[in-house]
Amino acid sequence: MPASRDFTAAASAERPLLVGIDVGGTSIKLGLVDSRGETLAYQAIPTHAETGAADAADRMGQAVRALYAEAGVAASDVARAGLATPGPLDIATGMLLHPGNLPHWHNTPIRDLVSNACGLPVRFANDANAAAYGEFWRGAGREVRSMVMFTLGTGVGGGIVIDDVLLEGCHGCGGELGHIIIDCHDDAPNNSLDILGTLEGYCGSYGVTGRAEAALARGDASSLRKRTGDGEELTPLMIAEEAEAGDQLALDVVLDTAKYLAIGIVTAVHTIDPESVVIGGAMTFGGAGHPLGERFLDRIRSEAKSRMFEALRDKVSIDFATLGSDAGYLGAAGLARRDAP
Amino acid sequence: MPASRDFTAAASAERPLLVGIDVGGTSIKLGLVDSRGETLAYQAIPTHAETGAADAADRMGQAVRALYAEAGVAASDVARAGLATPGPLDIATGMLLHPGNLPHWHNTPIRDLVSNACGLPVRFANDANAAAYGEFWRGAGREVRSMVMFTLGTGVGGGIVIDDVLLEGCHGCGGELGHIIIDCHDDAPNNSLDILGTLEGYCGSYGVTGRAEAALARGDASSLRKRTGDGEELTPLMIAEEAEAGDQLALDVVLDTAKYLAIGIVTAVHTIDPESVVIGGAMTFGGAGHPLGERFLDRIRSEAKSRMFEALRDKVSIDFATLGSDAGYLGAAGLARRDAP
Repeated sequence: MPASRDFTAAASAERPLLVGIDVGGTSIKLGLVDSRGETLAYQAIPTHAETGAADAADRMGQAVRALYAEAGVAASDVARAGLATPGPLDIATGMLLHPGNLPHWHNTPIRDLVSNACGLPVRFANDANAAAYGEFWRGAGREVRSMVMFTLGTGVGGGIVIDDVLLEGCHGCGGELGHIIIDCHDDAPNNSLDILGTLEGYCGSYGVTGRAEAALARGDASSLRKRTGDGEELTPLMIAEEAEAGDQLALDVVLDTAKYLAIGIVTAVHTIDPESVVIGGAMTFGGAGHPLGERFLDRIRSEAKSRMFEALRDKVSIDFATLGSDAGYLGAAGLARRDAP
Repeated sequence: MPASRDFTAAASAERPLLVGIDVGGTSIKLGLVDSRGETLAYQAIPTHAETGAADAADRMGQAVRALYAEAGVAASDVARAGLATPGPLDIATGMLLHPGNLPHWHNTPIRDLVSNACGLPVRFANDANAAAYGEFWRGAGREVRSMVMFTLGTGVGGGIVIDDVLLEGCHGCGGELGHIIIDCHDDAPNNSLDILGTLEGYCGSYGVTGRAEAALARGDASSLRKRTGDGEELTPLMIAEEAEAGDQLALDVVLDTAKYLAIGIVTAVHTIDPESVVIGGAMTFGGAGHPLGERFLDRIRSEAKSRMFEALRDKVSIDFATLGSDAGYLGAAGLARRDAP
């Protein structure tokens, strides 16, 4: 959220108003949003995950009241809140189960804690699903009927929206596109959940660095060797930097990541047949407008089209997300506007 | 359709009545069905694909009128027909595009031909999708909210039903689960559409026989060698017979097919998160109640559960379809009951 962003004035906002909350391992983003998705006020607060969920919920309540004050709106103008958290979670009971990046919050009734602290009914959703809904409502997918989103970061998340309905599944596991299997062989890389051959195992940050490490271990020439030899940790950012500086091994790792993601995209397209595929998250090698990011996207498109039904090649768009880290709170608010808790 | 099947009497049928038509490369199945999915009358006629779509549509119209006469119902009691055909097809325009098993019917306005011949508005659908809807409405999925179906045969088809809505996609390619990619390697087997590493390339009949041929070519011992040496064509049925007779290579081919299908199932489950997965089609190695079929299903279940989110392992059922070749016409009729053309 850029500090310079123009907020919508309360007088021109479309009622009812909504609160969107996106909980991450490091920070919690909160926005006061109108029914068209215009933001009236925004705050990010530290998660301080180690102090527990109840404390964080209290601070969310304080932040929400600060948003009302900042925008000059009454609590009675606000209808509902949307709350996005990392999974796994149980939507029906509002429970956070055992998210890897919130170890102190396991088995917490997070929805009700936040609802009480904010004085609002809360629509609860998985963070990747909320981000997908945000992009569908206000971002890269705003002109389409249906959209599949992949979120690249430490893990790989996903979200599916069909005709304005988020596909959450019977048990809250719909759209878990990081855990589709793209390699059926027994020697496929493992992922964080001990599942062999998943998209995340290839395109999550550890999959990407793991391929670079394997190539270095084979003795391939690379400028990455000097940096890791100097004691730096091998990261996707380092790989991006060396790829930009002309290192072939690093560039191959980036373009192979594009190929594996494209294979996951084809699977999603042949399952969902959406109008649009959107790629977001922190690990897009610079993303839109950046030379390496655009090269990454071009490779994704060409690899996906080479494996896609001919009839779909010119019909399914593949683009970067446009909302950045705003997608989660906007999507949470957007879900809250449509769904009673 | 067993000849001995008890048909529902017209007097006890729930109006409006529907016609379901399932067009295959060899035969066309037609049923007169009531609004609960009970069949009043049924016929199968030869496709005679080589005489063209217009001729077949005329014969469908005659068969439909024969069904009315057999059941003793008036044409005015019948509201709509559902028509299922092999894809690819264009649902919006009612066009059959270029199905591999109906070469003389390419680029035919099949929906309107059948509508005119039968005197009914026609709901047009892909045959695998219609079969999935049939199983959801009347078969293995009748107790669940959402279901993913895999159809094993020469090719691998699929269908997805969520909350009683068939997922057909933006361009009629939703649920094409044979064309999800389970092998991201460049040496993966190819499929009928020249896509590398698809589920169909592993679990379609040519994928199954291809793995057996490769093992025989490596010199592995097998009773299959004698039969193929005697000039018999290697088929999935032959593999099933030799597996039952105790041949290890043949059994391994069957159980590997189960593993690859399980990998595709996990991908679909982590995407859709359904209540139930249903496996149908002709190539289920005997299917329910048959020792090899049950062993095939047990292996599918164990391989899928070993790769599935822990939270889903006991929640997502995996079972054989129950309607056999009735699924298509029943599903077509079921879709027609809900959708105006």
